[in-house]
Amino acid sequence: MTFHKLDDLGRRLEALEHALSILGADEATHMAVGGGEKRAEAMSQLAGMYHAQATAPEIAEWIEAAKGEDLTDDQKLAVAEFERSYVSATCLPTEFVQRRTAATMRSEQLWRDLRAKGDWDTFLPALEGVVALVREEAQLRAEATGLAPYDALMDQYDPGNRVADIDVVFADLKSFLKDFVPEALDVQERRLSARPRKPLNGPYPIEKQRELGLAAMRAVGFDFTHGSLAISHHPFCGGVPTDVRMTTRYRTDEFLSSLMGVLHETGHALYEQGLPKEWSHWPLGKARGMGMHESQSLFVEMQLARSSEFWEFFLPQVIQYLGDDALNGWDIADVLSEVNHVERGYIRVDADEVTYPLHVILRYELEKDLVSGALQVSQIPEAWDAKMQEYLGISTIDNPKDGPMQDVHWPGGAFGYFPSYTLGAMIAAQLGAAMRNDLPDMGAQMKAGDFSQINQWRADRVWSQASRYSTSDLVTRATGEPLNADHFKNHLKSRYGSK
Amino acid sequence: MTFHKLDDLGRRLEALEHALSILGADEATHMAVGGGEKRAEAMSQLAGMYHAQATAPEIAEWIEAAKGEDLTDDQKLAVAEFERSYVSATCLPTEFVQRRTAATMRSEQLWRDLRAKGDWDTFLPALEGVVALVREEAQLRAEATGLAPYDALMDQYDPGNRVADIDVVFADLKSFLKDFVPEALDVQERRLSARPRKPLNGPYPIEKQRELGLAAMRAVGFDFTHGSLAISHHPFCGGVPTDVRMTTRYRTDEFLSSLMGVLHETGHALYEQGLPKEWSHWPLGKARGMGMHESQSLFVEMQLARSSEFWEFFLPQVIQYLGDDALNGWDIADVLSEVNHVERGYIRVDADEVTYPLHVILRYELEKDLVSGALQVSQIPEAWDAKMQEYLGISTIDNPKDGPMQDVHWPGGAFGYFPSYTLGAMIAAQLGAAMRNDLPDMGAQMKAGDFSQINQWRADRVWSQASRYSTSDLVTRATGEPLNADHFKNHLKSRYGSK
Repeated sequence: MTFHKLDDLGRRLEALEHALSILGADEATHMAVGGGEKRAEAMSQLAGMYHAQATAPEIAEWIEAAKGEDLTDDQKLAVAEFERSYVSATCLPTEFVQRRTAATMRSEQLWRDLRAKGDWDTFLPALEGVVALVREEAQLRAEATGLAPYDALMDQYDPGNRVADIDVVFADLKSFLKDFVPEALDVQERRLSARPRKPLNGPYPIEKQRELGLAAMRAVGFDFTHGSLAISHHPFCGGVPTDVRMTTRYRTDEFLSSLMGVLHETGHALYEQGLPKEWSHWPLGKARGMGMHESQSLFVEMQLARSSEFWEFFLPQVIQYLGDDALNGWDIADVLSEVNHVERGYIRVDADEVTYPLHVILRYELEKDLVSGALQVSQIPEAWDAKMQEYLGISTIDNPKDGPMQDVHWPGGAFGYFPSYTLGAMIAAQLGAAMRNDLPDMGAQMKAGDFSQINQWRADRVWSQASRYSTSDLVTRATGEPLNADHFKNHLKSRYGSK
Repeated sequence: MTFHKLDDLGRRLEALEHALSILGADEATHMAVGGGEKRAEAMSQLAGMYHAQATAPEIAEWIEAAKGEDLTDDQKLAVAEFERSYVSATCLPTEFVQRRTAATMRSEQLWRDLRAKGDWDTFLPALEGVVALVREEAQLRAEATGLAPYDALMDQYDPGNRVADIDVVFADLKSFLKDFVPEALDVQERRLSARPRKPLNGPYPIEKQRELGLAAMRAVGFDFTHGSLAISHHPFCGGVPTDVRMTTRYRTDEFLSSLMGVLHETGHALYEQGLPKEWSHWPLGKARGMGMHESQSLFVEMQLARSSEFWEFFLPQVIQYLGDDALNGWDIADVLSEVNHVERGYIRVDADEVTYPLHVILRYELEKDLVSGALQVSQIPEAWDAKMQEYLGISTIDNPKDGPMQDVHWPGGAFGYFPSYTLGAMIAAQLGAAMRNDLPDMGAQMKAGDFSQINQWRADRVWSQASRYSTSDLVTRATGEPLNADHFKNHLKSRYGSK
């Protein structure tokens, strides 16, 4: 059977991915500082071997032959996902990939230097070069997939994402948020004047924070026989499904940012740990995409860990691990006020869940126009500023460092990725709403620190489904309806609204 | 130039070795317990890719073509070592390698189970199967290299090791030790009756022991920008030269075994860190072999760290890191009495440096006869017991667990390896003697904790030479004479003898 050739290929690629994932996590956590150059060399060689094996011309024949074979339903799905990966990996000519890699590497390096200086003008030509290549790539991917150019870019990150659908939900969300942000800020101001923010009572020793983080991970279902927590400069969730490498970082003057970060990454980790093990060497066995992945981290962070029910369970744990006087005089309302603070800001990665989507929608709108050619790179600063003023009432025109230069995505050539963040937040809210229908007891379970039914529901609906369906179909199957911004809006209203 | 094909091949193989080394070290230190199965799968796939690339038929042509090219002297040496690796990797037919791998894996698994039970009779057929394959392998390697069968086995671990030479030095050493062990025990008994062993004053917290170990590593020259220390069940020195992964283990009732283990592994690490970086992707750039590697660890452990000069420098460090009352009333003589304790025992890995060579010589003598067919596997217990009685005056006839079943080497098919241990001890002593000639000040430098000249001498004579020469030639060049057991005998006499 030809299918076995694909199966064997999958095992070879899985081994190389395993090595690259663990080497990547190790680099950020345990590698000696002088080991970086050889590590980069080794990983680049391994990535080259991966690419050569994943794009071998005979794979096209194997896929065609396998389609005609007597396969199980799972094997048929596996062949379809092998084909998707193969087309995605081979639709760009080698010559183009080399040009693009060289250009984005140069542009990223330049960006690291120039962002700190806020020097947009010097950076402009490099970004123009990247955008020209992205337009070319979008065209090549469009031809290979039959999709529209920007759809073809998004489809790499979340299969099934289409401008036609996202325009609708983003427009809905944007018009809601333009009014809702002022409302939430108003509510917050009134609450804080009645009940001012309380000071934290640090220092919080790292070893104790680590134990608290491990307790939080354990509580929400992290499997420590298949993963661990370490320290890195930028927190991430990496490794492989059988050995998930999560990281966090600590500051000793406060503990909530590390704890919330740990809970966010645990959401990613649970998805990986919950994927079907018998498919781990097939593209079909992988997590569906970036938006769905983000929905799982945001589910834990936003739907669970920033709720009052969660803190009814978890506040005593904080006391247990950090000590009686860790939070002098705080009750649940004080914690929630701290972790759910809303603020209009320049920086996407620092934004709260109310203002965050506006940062994303701004980028999505600009990206589409950059890819279509309706917007030129030189026009970005003005276009960015106009939208920041319109959506958040703040100006970045004199501050490109905290405006269009703040993210690595564009310098790195990652266009079509931004929507996934807000898609993730919306999916998380929609999953939460559906879950509350199925588990009316969900709030009580959270208060009791019992996440078993909550996780079983997610395992059945999402984790075990791996890449069976497109992102949009997976949402529909898991929640009973297509993506609908109302659930996220309702979530925000109930947490931040005036009623 | 064809040489570049070998150069590129070296870079691909280095990347796979890098991955395998770091994945191996990671498995023992940071991997989640449930990650083992997938890790084994990934490493086996990567090892398969390594083997396929390292044994490709066209490499033989590249080597022949490169020999005719206009190469630098270093490149010529590189080609010669490429050829040595290639012959070693290709001289066994694939069919044979598969049979041998299957047999040794089964035999090792069986051994793990049966050793604990001391069940030699059940284990016998498996070991007979392994020995039959080892005889076949020795014959195949002999044909490929033109060496005698057992020489061909040893040559894998230490190029240039020959029975003709080793027989002479081992006979010399054996006849010396048969008299010297009783003498050393007698000296020790008299010393201990005059000055009894003092109790340790634990517990010694792991975190403090770790800091002490790091201080010891730093003192003798470990480069922490290119390596680190972690914990594992079996201590090792792994990783890659630019990122050496050392491990130790701790017990809290004493600290000397971990400290001595750390110093031993640091000796291995210094060799790796001192290899020429520009050759790291050539076989020529690797450490010469197992005996030379062991000489570097034993140099630090036996020539430096178990000497009174070292402790003059290091005892105050122990007090600094473990506290004033860590060693109540101990002086240097007490430490030396503790770390240089001699005892006749059954177990090689627990043996002191006086009795250790007799364990090795016993195995070497039996191995040669097993490979030649002069000894049958079923005769091992009696032969082992007879030699144990003759060399150490103890019997293992009723105790196969602590007799011929104690080591993993034979169950795993590693014949020809044992001599390297004692070769290492002799080379270390010979290097020490040569160094004292060149650096008459060596003792004073150790007392001052200054290892810079000592390490520079080793870097020049050994580390930077990598695999330029055979083990025996490297010894001769580094010390000015061929391997000579007198230096090791003198070392033992001066440390343990009656005068």
